[in-house]
Amino acid sequence: MLPSESTTPISHAMNSNSSFSVMKRYRNGEIWDFENEMAVTIDRQVILGLDGGTTSTVCVCMPILPFKDPLPDPLPVLARATAGCSNHNSVGETAARETLEQVMADALAKSNSNRFAVQAVCLAVSGVNHPKDQQRILNWLRDIFPSHVRLYVQNDSVAALASGTLGKLQGCVLIAGTGTIAYGFAEDGREARAAGAGPILGDWGSGYGIAAQALTAVVRAYDGRGPQTNLTTSMLQKLGLSSPDELIGWTYIDPSWARIAALVPVVVSCAEAGDQVANKILHDSVEELALSVKAVVQRLSLCGEDGDGPFPLVMVGGVLEANKRWDIGKEVIKCISRDYPGAIPIHPKVEPAVGAALLAWNFLMTESQN
Amino acid sequence: MLPSESTTPISHAMNSNSSFSVMKRYRNGEIWDFENEMAVTIDRQVILGLDGGTTSTVCVCMPILPFKDPLPDPLPVLARATAGCSNHNSVGETAARETLEQVMADALAKSNSNRFAVQAVCLAVSGVNHPKDQQRILNWLRDIFPSHVRLYVQNDSVAALASGTLGKLQGCVLIAGTGTIAYGFAEDGREARAAGAGPILGDWGSGYGIAAQALTAVVRAYDGRGPQTNLTTSMLQKLGLSSPDELIGWTYIDPSWARIAALVPVVVSCAEAGDQVANKILHDSVEELALSVKAVVQRLSLCGEDGDGPFPLVMVGGVLEANKRWDIGKEVIKCISRDYPGAIPIHPKVEPAVGAALLAWNFLMTESQN
Repeated sequence: MLPSESTTPISHAMNSNSSFSVMKRYRNGEIWDFENEMAVTIDRQVILGLDGGTTSTVCVCMPILPFKDPLPDPLPVLARATAGCSNHNSVGETAARETLEQVMADALAKSNSNRFAVQAVCLAVSGVNHPKDQQRILNWLRDIFPSHVRLYVQNDSVAALASGTLGKLQGCVLIAGTGTIAYGFAEDGREARAAGAGPILGDWGSGYGIAAQALTAVVRAYDGRGPQTNLTTSMLQKLGLSSPDELIGWTYIDPSWARIAALVPVVVSCAEAGDQVANKILHDSVEELALSVKAVVQRLSLCGEDGDGPFPLVMVGGVLEANKRWDIGKEVIKCISRDYPGAIPIHPKVEPAVGAALLAWNFLMTESQN
Repeated sequence: MLPSESTTPISHAMNSNSSFSVMKRYRNGEIWDFENEMAVTIDRQVILGLDGGTTSTVCVCMPILPFKDPLPDPLPVLARATAGCSNHNSVGETAARETLEQVMADALAKSNSNRFAVQAVCLAVSGVNHPKDQQRILNWLRDIFPSHVRLYVQNDSVAALASGTLGKLQGCVLIAGTGTIAYGFAEDGREARAAGAGPILGDWGSGYGIAAQALTAVVRAYDGRGPQTNLTTSMLQKLGLSSPDELIGWTYIDPSWARIAALVPVVVSCAEAGDQVANKILHDSVEELALSVKAVVQRLSLCGEDGDGPFPLVMVGGVLEANKRWDIGKEVIKCISRDYPGAIPIHPKVEPAVGAALLAWNFLMTESQN
């Protein structure tokens, strides 16, 4: 990492709308009204990191970091703003855009800053699976920010990786919450992912996958296709239902992934109490999650030629952080380490939005170096 | 089966609205307007059989059958009417009711008959999983028909069983189309079902299940979690996509079960061409489908005490009727027969709506016998 070459402070009086005439199109005026009320002179450069998921969206505003290794601890965060879902597949493009724009404006307002002070933005959002998704969001960001601002759009899992590697795009991240994905970068910039295709396309290691398998086990025990399991009593009790018959109605009245994934703790409790069906579901999920990571490590040769080279393995998400007696995350690491002993598990101390901000900073540094 | 005791012809002049004053509440007047235009005297008693599914709804109007064994072949069908989806879970209760009422009115109008001529109605509709579903529909049917009409409400799989057994509620039906369910009746009236809980709750043998597993296999081959398969080329070609990446977008833009199930022929073709991944998916689905039937047969002791007693096994649905070199239905029967050699496979020659009409007739006969 090299020091930024573009450290000249910028100074703009932000008292009139005319200050924003540099922007091609001025959208959603009211979102940015706060900038007109600022009487201050902005002389502090900032970066924005944004983590946009299906459940919530977080934006942090950080000052441009001085170049030093290691990074300051704790990392300086000027402001943090939150909003709801910003996955365009879930809420549609217009709503997703408005959420993203609002949360960035909130973070800037809270840090007493504005768009001219921004040097770089990294938007890491779920639902970005294609270069064309990336380009669509970039085009729209371009309309919001002045032309000097560097813009980067990534899948949200990249921010999660960066939250563990503090901005370095190297290694593999495994996310297992409601959904699951493994995403990795080689030092030469090649990237690869595994899973992350949602429940229809077989993300069985996810929280949704674990819980759906458990509900299925209850139905199968009830109709005679599967072995009896304590999951039946536990699930019915948890859901306030009196018979497995009623699970069908419960499931389809609102098949949202998060609602089903919220049942994972029931499966873990049953497994801890010795239920074999629940245990098998968790063991299968461990295999599935480990398989995703192994596929990425293999394709990117993250472990070097000998197969035992070190690489960061960032572990993120509710399923991996349960920290119970039955510790899914620990079992996944064990399973990966049998094949790749060089895996260095990292449980990030900062949130993915900070990872995104560090990414923005790193991209900026790299660009100014070139 | 005993002859009906209520064979007195009824005769009503249907020229005025007042003829319908016997009905407690007169709903949807316009649906039944045709009755006011009838100048004829109705002296032929009829029954209505209705098969209401998620894709379409069929109603047939049949004359009351004379008591004789065997039944006339072909069975006399006075009229047949069709409509769209009548599953209240899919289209809501109001739309489902209107569709059901309209299709019954159409069948009566086409057969130059009316509600006073109806002796019995059997409504076999998908989404009826509980006695309370049944009661709700019965209450509403009661408002439509004169009080002499016998009304029966069943799950649509019961009509499929009856289409194979010609109205006898005994044996087991296996339906495998977009979804799958096994439903059985013992001679003493006990009933049992297996599967039919939809894809979230593990109906892996269904057309949806087979196709979703095939799409998953393509994703897993692509990201390195699974073996290479010819399904990749075949599926992408079929869907007009250029990369497995694009499957995610294709799947979630419209995750309707029927749209995904429509890909089953691709899986069958690949299996026939020797693809091992496709073959495994079909073999697993055969095991799953056979398991559903075995669970029902076991719980109802359909095969007698020795385990080799004969019982009708009615096979219905696109997945079982493919009649290709890779014949899923044939393999399922083989698999069931290994455990229950008394299974007598039946491929119905009449449609489920006719099965429903025969059920109505049988119920009527049984009631008049008691």
